[in-house]
Amino acid sequence: MAADKALTKRDEDFSAWYNEIVLRAELADHSPVRGSMVIRPWGYAIWENMQRALDQMLKDTGHENAYFPLLIPMSFIEREKAHVEGFKPELAVVTVAGGKELEEPLVVRPTSETMIYSMYARWVQSYRDLPILINQWANVIRWELRTRLFLRTTEFLWQEGHTAHATEEEAIEETLSILQIYRSFMEEWIGLPVVTGLKSDGEKFAGAEQTHTCETMMQDRKALQAGTSHHLGQNFSRQFDLRFQSEDGKEEYAWNSSWGVTTRLIGAMVMTHGDDSGIVVPPRLAPTQVVIVPIYRNDDQKPGVVRKAHELHARLQSDGVRSNVDDRDHMSPGAKFYEWERKGVPLRMEIGPRDLESGQVVLVKRVRAEDEERKAFLPEGQALAELPSWLEAVQAELFEQARSRREEHTHRGVDTWEELTEILNGPGGFVYTGWSGDPEVEERVKQETGGTLRCIPDVAFRSESPPTRCIGGGKAEMEVVWAKAY
Amino acid sequence: MAADKALTKRDEDFSAWYNEIVLRAELADHSPVRGSMVIRPWGYAIWENMQRALDQMLKDTGHENAYFPLLIPMSFIEREKAHVEGFKPELAVVTVAGGKELEEPLVVRPTSETMIYSMYARWVQSYRDLPILINQWANVIRWELRTRLFLRTTEFLWQEGHTAHATEEEAIEETLSILQIYRSFMEEWIGLPVVTGLKSDGEKFAGAEQTHTCETMMQDRKALQAGTSHHLGQNFSRQFDLRFQSEDGKEEYAWNSSWGVTTRLIGAMVMTHGDDSGIVVPPRLAPTQVVIVPIYRNDDQKPGVVRKAHELHARLQSDGVRSNVDDRDHMSPGAKFYEWERKGVPLRMEIGPRDLESGQVVLVKRVRAEDEERKAFLPEGQALAELPSWLEAVQAELFEQARSRREEHTHRGVDTWEELTEILNGPGGFVYTGWSGDPEVEERVKQETGGTLRCIPDVAFRSESPPTRCIGGGKAEMEVVWAKAY
Repeated sequence: MAADKALTKRDEDFSAWYNEIVLRAELADHSPVRGSMVIRPWGYAIWENMQRALDQMLKDTGHENAYFPLLIPMSFIEREKAHVEGFKPELAVVTVAGGKELEEPLVVRPTSETMIYSMYARWVQSYRDLPILINQWANVIRWELRTRLFLRTTEFLWQEGHTAHATEEEAIEETLSILQIYRSFMEEWIGLPVVTGLKSDGEKFAGAEQTHTCETMMQDRKALQAGTSHHLGQNFSRQFDLRFQSEDGKEEYAWNSSWGVTTRLIGAMVMTHGDDSGIVVPPRLAPTQVVIVPIYRNDDQKPGVVRKAHELHARLQSDGVRSNVDDRDHMSPGAKFYEWERKGVPLRMEIGPRDLESGQVVLVKRVRAEDEERKAFLPEGQALAELPSWLEAVQAELFEQARSRREEHTHRGVDTWEELTEILNGPGGFVYTGWSGDPEVEERVKQETGGTLRCIPDVAFRSESPPTRCIGGGKAEMEVVWAKAY
Repeated sequence: MAADKALTKRDEDFSAWYNEIVLRAELADHSPVRGSMVIRPWGYAIWENMQRALDQMLKDTGHENAYFPLLIPMSFIEREKAHVEGFKPELAVVTVAGGKELEEPLVVRPTSETMIYSMYARWVQSYRDLPILINQWANVIRWELRTRLFLRTTEFLWQEGHTAHATEEEAIEETLSILQIYRSFMEEWIGLPVVTGLKSDGEKFAGAEQTHTCETMMQDRKALQAGTSHHLGQNFSRQFDLRFQSEDGKEEYAWNSSWGVTTRLIGAMVMTHGDDSGIVVPPRLAPTQVVIVPIYRNDDQKPGVVRKAHELHARLQSDGVRSNVDDRDHMSPGAKFYEWERKGVPLRMEIGPRDLESGQVVLVKRVRAEDEERKAFLPEGQALAELPSWLEAVQAELFEQARSRREEHTHRGVDTWEELTEILNGPGGFVYTGWSGDPEVEERVKQETGGTLRCIPDVAFRSESPPTRCIGGGKAEMEVVWAKAY
């Protein structure tokens, strides 16, 4: 795609903006296989930084990684009734291997509960073998009809955690503790403010007792489900005979949890922080945090500023800052500025012949590309010293900007059907109402607005005065959040 | 598998020993899908340490990671003639997805040249877009008939690097520089001494111009191909139209290299360093480098030694040593010793009530489990201070042990057919002879001994006086290495 073609603006067509910017920031590309994407080096490096952060959080809380097979016997998937109903329409199936028709078709994993709990059943004899706290980083396939880069692709990358416990309490505690890990990870690393809560039965994972979710609001005010943590009860342990001898000698079925986040988080990052100049990568995730651009008009000026640029680079790297020098010769500084703004590098450092003489550098923040205040002229030493705190400030600013945007478009205390449907069909956002628990109300909202019940929010996100009436009429049993969603 | 059943000894049945020890060290397990394995947390943590080390070496030399789709259109695989001939018999094929028969079957990648070079063709216009130096960590499927854990499985994990260059020289330079990275990685991290060299045309990668290999010798004197680096010429760029405009304005096809190592390296580690007590993990790869076992006979003794064990653990961790305290209450110290020896933890630290009083600890090396000298009683401070150098010494010892074993079973200057076949059919090992380049000689060796031409060794590994006669008769054009192989 030509770099000089103007980007669609967000307020013209948010969806077109998203599709363009993902390609033009070189995060990903379409592949020759329908609905399947290539994650390009810039996008993959962001994913690696996400992985590193979350993986450490999971290891710090006692989880270990392992790897389970990609191909799962069809009969396994069919064993848990709700599970197969949910996943069967989306399966990709291997029917031929090694030149022969297989006796039993093998499913390319859409998720690994069935395979993993069948293995745990071999490994667990006694309560001493519990808990098992295993995570895997893997690819999965779900044959979706309508696909979009990162948000919904036939193949995606994710982590899926699968745990087994001796008691239901422990399994629930694990489910909730993972939800909090996800929340911290998303807020602190990706700058995504999330609402945590419980899914309604109509929206929960196929095979779960309860699904907990992290819901986040995009700039177009639509919700995006950013991660889920499921309490599976004994649904899978009963089907896969995952039993153990308890401390008092009884045979019992184990209790399971499973949880995952995917490469969709990259889409969430783009739609939360991006602007009309391109994507914005939060500093903690940025593969390059500072790009240093030497500026010169002729071959006399060049050696000095390029040398200085590399010197600054070396000093930043030894301070643990991920910097990079863009000394490509065939591009103008302006073209470089545009490229790195499009790719969302959080800070730019410019160094020209006059800066060299006066011992200063120019620092430019990526956020608020329209704002002149984002530019600062600083003595070199001060710039180097203050740079880590600039990065932290940008990280905080991105989160705060997203949080206040979410608050601005959150509607609490809505208690008429008209108001709910007007908001969902109009400006959008998160709408808090009362709900009786009746699935028919969910169905009506969906039909009239396309919106869905995103979650029954956790205490921290509930309104101060809880609603008393259900939005569909009658008494409210709980408060819920509605929104259109990705 | 019961922990108390005696392990098969290596000299009774090396193959049975291997199969048992992989399971009993909890590196991996068989899965319900034929030929497919589960990599358990202990095995996966070793793989993660391998990944981290190699990934850093690749990034330090300018390579970036990315991710390409799992499923590849059948027509892509069929485009490069030698490639499809090599891979077609091993393909797993998705024919149904989303409930429908696919118009074109999709192959689960056995390797990604076709997909990746088709994408590079979209990204490359001019010589300025080259080189592309991309690596991916991924799973692949090759439907093998005879499988063994880690060594040959229908699904395995690997990294596959794919590069594109403007000139043949650059592509060859890349192929060779990766070979040296592999060699350093294997020697310095896994303690695998390797012979590098070129594959004969009969043994090269399907679709390559030249395949370079790292060959290493297992304890049963069989060779194991531990990693390969291919010069692909323009074979794929021509099929996938990967062209660029050169500096002087001409349209040219790019030159490619591809290279990979797999989870097979874990099998190589086991068969190189393992002994009759279990596996031995080189310290740099060990998830736990030092296991600390508190020893106590009663509840009075327990709190003091357990507290001291955790104190030592904290101090080791702050020194960057990966330590662990095994304070499980239901197991005897002896049972713990056996378990960690089976799992190959390089060092054990024991702390009992008397040690506590006298301020000493007991350090026990995993290597040479039969040797009393491996045990040392040291003052606590000295033990902590010397521990990192003990670990480095063990690392070096493992490599040296494997290297001298290889030398012992390397036969140079062999120039009669009888001698070659007697060694290959008898004690085994690496046999160096002259070769004319005639593939019929390879075929005869294979038929009479089951051995194969492992490589045409690089200069560093050639004999001082090069052979003049081909082992099959006539003049030698080069020196080659023969061995039976995994």
